[in-house]
Amino acid sequence: MPRNFKLVLAYDGADFSGWQVQPDRRTIQGELADAIRRVTSEQVLPQGSGRTDAGVHALGQVASFALASPIPAPNLQVALNHTLPAAVRVLAIEEVPPEFHARHSAKGKTYEYRIYRGDICPPFLARYVHHHPYPLNEDAMCDVAKLVVGEHDFTSFAAVDPERGKEEVELDNVRTIFSSSWQREEETFTYRVRSDGFLHHMVRNLVGTFLLVGKGSVAIDAIPKILAARSRSQAGPTAPAQGLCLVSVEY
Amino acid sequence: MPRNFKLVLAYDGADFSGWQVQPDRRTIQGELADAIRRVTSEQVLPQGSGRTDAGVHALGQVASFALASPIPAPNLQVALNHTLPAAVRVLAIEEVPPEFHARHSAKGKTYEYRIYRGDICPPFLARYVHHHPYPLNEDAMCDVAKLVVGEHDFTSFAAVDPERGKEEVELDNVRTIFSSSWQREEETFTYRVRSDGFLHHMVRNLVGTFLLVGKGSVAIDAIPKILAARSRSQAGPTAPAQGLCLVSVEY
Repeated sequence: MPRNFKLVLAYDGADFSGWQVQPDRRTIQGELADAIRRVTSEQVLPQGSGRTDAGVHALGQVASFALASPIPAPNLQVALNHTLPAAVRVLAIEEVPPEFHARHSAKGKTYEYRIYRGDICPPFLARYVHHHPYPLNEDAMCDVAKLVVGEHDFTSFAAVDPERGKEEVELDNVRTIFSSSWQREEETFTYRVRSDGFLHHMVRNLVGTFLLVGKGSVAIDAIPKILAARSRSQAGPTAPAQGLCLVSVEY
Repeated sequence: MPRNFKLVLAYDGADFSGWQVQPDRRTIQGELADAIRRVTSEQVLPQGSGRTDAGVHALGQVASFALASPIPAPNLQVALNHTLPAAVRVLAIEEVPPEFHARHSAKGKTYEYRIYRGDICPPFLARYVHHHPYPLNEDAMCDVAKLVVGEHDFTSFAAVDPERGKEEVELDNVRTIFSSSWQREEETFTYRVRSDGFLHHMVRNLVGTFLLVGKGSVAIDAIPKILAARSRSQAGPTAPAQGLCLVSVEY
């Protein structure tokens, strides 16, 4: 009987076309499937807790897949880390019950979005932050971040998916944000958000909107109206991918 | 009359073929020359304090060049940082006397070499460290590092340059190391060395030799003999480039 595995992965997403496997593109899912095949000779498609976009990083992405091979979990971890590019690491691996699924079983996720505020962004940070050295009302951004906590319909902050019907969107764009806050540490201003789930581009669209508040072009009290409008065009632009990092997934 | 400029540069060398300009290769010197040309329309070849190899990083490389353009130094810095790739940053710029030359005027340099000792190297460090999770006698490496302090002929630690005559090598491979030590901080074991100058590959060859001492295959008291032999074949292999960083240059 195949055994089901849960992997915790960290990756530097800068040189990848996101999580999801695509023909002729370097993707995290593709690299992981390739490494599993080279280690076990089994062709499986590991399932992620969710897709991360091109350029987005992870400290604790979770993937699951089933294997027939009798390889012990610790050996599989060592072999995968030996085979994967250095930009992708298996931090932990464990055998889990067959019903475990990295996406379906997920109960919550935490993301961080990092903005570098200094005039000159150190080259060693440039891949992992959005550089914004221009004036921002950071206090206003801290205040507005609190307004999205709770259960809301986040349609205004979701990428429009042409494959989904309107009714489907209205039904399932409700999410609960448990915490949402900005923190300044030296020159880095970091947004941390925890939710029971995120819509496509949701964190980057929240940050893009918070940036408009920081620049003074959107008022703090516009946020409830933007949420109520349930229209993508009401919110701010999508913040650049490289500042985003999937920190952890809860089960 | 052209004005002479001194630049302090930081760069992530992972995606570059080193400092020195080469046809059809991305190099730091090439990117800088290109940025200067785009900003000022002047074709100059900035001189570095020394070449760094492919994959080697810098926190404080120094370059100099002369310009006829009347552009003020602060504006030049902003324009260059706007034009250069994010992996290369101009940290400081100042006008200097015409006789200043980044290489000829240098009085000393400091390099660091970072080894990551943990089992799993975080993807965000992988570009900037040499991952060596295997046993090392770090105390022996600390002891042996002290033995190269002082004035020595470092021919045994210099890359063999086929273009240089034997006599030339014997004359000018003497350098003075002012300090040489290892320091452990969490999982990172860092070698820091300051000298009046370095021969080609010298730091990486020192580290490669210290690693043999750490592994127990070279004894600490072999170091004076290796120095005295003045033969590259007596010392250890060249440690990988990615762990090396040019920290600062003194004038």
